[in-house]
Amino acid sequence: MQGKFITLEGLDGAGKSVATEAVVSTIQEAGFEVVTTREVGGTPIGEKLRELVLSRDSDILPNAEVLLMFAARSQHLEQLILPNIKAGRWVVCDRFTDSTYAYQGGGRELSFDRIAQIEQWAQGEFRPDLTLLFDTDIKTAQQRVRQIDSPDRFEKETDAFHDRVRAAFINLHTLQPERIKYIDATRDVEEVKSISQRFIKEFIDQAHG
Amino acid sequence: MQGKFITLEGLDGAGKSVATEAVVSTIQEAGFEVVTTREVGGTPIGEKLRELVLSRDSDILPNAEVLLMFAARSQHLEQLILPNIKAGRWVVCDRFTDSTYAYQGGGRELSFDRIAQIEQWAQGEFRPDLTLLFDTDIKTAQQRVRQIDSPDRFEKETDAFHDRVRAAFINLHTLQPERIKYIDATRDVEEVKSISQRFIKEFIDQAHG
Repeated sequence: MQGKFITLEGLDGAGKSVATEAVVSTIQEAGFEVVTTREVGGTPIGEKLRELVLSRDSDILPNAEVLLMFAARSQHLEQLILPNIKAGRWVVCDRFTDSTYAYQGGGRELSFDRIAQIEQWAQGEFRPDLTLLFDTDIKTAQQRVRQIDSPDRFEKETDAFHDRVRAAFINLHTLQPERIKYIDATRDVEEVKSISQRFIKEFIDQAHG
Repeated sequence: MQGKFITLEGLDGAGKSVATEAVVSTIQEAGFEVVTTREVGGTPIGEKLRELVLSRDSDILPNAEVLLMFAARSQHLEQLILPNIKAGRWVVCDRFTDSTYAYQGGGRELSFDRIAQIEQWAQGEFRPDLTLLFDTDIKTAQQRVRQIDSPDRFEKETDAFHDRVRAAFINLHTLQPERIKYIDATRDVEEVKSISQRFIKEFIDQAHG
């Protein structure tokens, strides 16, 4: 039996990392092997592209940025995600194509249509089986991020940019509510973890019930 | 008046570099300003991607390779090629999209169709105004390259790979003989230069005659 592909989405600082552990343990308790990974990254080439794309010295234009994101994603899919899923493992990924719609579509204002063309080229019909969207207002997200480290190329963007990213994420949830589950991540951390676990359990019950 | 976009194509070692100077001086003598550039590269991001793509340590898969090539190309187009052409300068570029058809299409056996989809996405209707294809048998090309330096990720490919690249280049010329001019680059260097100059002069006469 093939594994499933679960993605976590949201602004930096929304609480994806905190929830990951809860998500992984829930899947493991149901008896499945789990591989965790992230985008941009997940492969040797992908991690090099991550450095390039996040570096504040880079001056990548929006169209090139989309192509770079999907270059890293294509490698990630073929080298790590698909082989693991085919081997029966569940893959939990911090960010995936919804982030491209949110950051390059929403943030950089490229059309969803244009992004969908490259998505189709790179992924064919492959999409996440379940996506958890961690939504916070941008102030909460930014406060959490600023405690951690110096801002990267995306984190240093304007509030207006992050507002557009957040709105795009919510738009994606509205368009695909079955796949993309909305989580109010301004809530208490323990509550966010338990909501995440509930969505995962429901999904497991549906998939294997 | 807008400038023109001239590209030089062929296997490494076919003699593109040797001909570049002759091409540039011919355009300058006709009274036009010329900017020379190259792919993969031509911009700060492009040169970093060049390192990644040519490094023998990289294990980039064919689909990711196409997306990386077009990421670098999109940046190159928007940041360097189009602004110069709009400012009236002629741009002479060592390799462009025909190399993607030849290396990733011919060499790595991706379909021309799939490459054409990304070409359209990244370039719209923009194509070179004139392309000089320097054709040699692969033995001659490889001997010339091996005198210069240690082979990169493409140069270290098999003879069968380079045979497919060469055949793809010839196929492109056959499909678009008006744009892509064939030059037998096994000839004497001075002869190759003078044939290149003749094509450039003819093109200038047609464009501005």
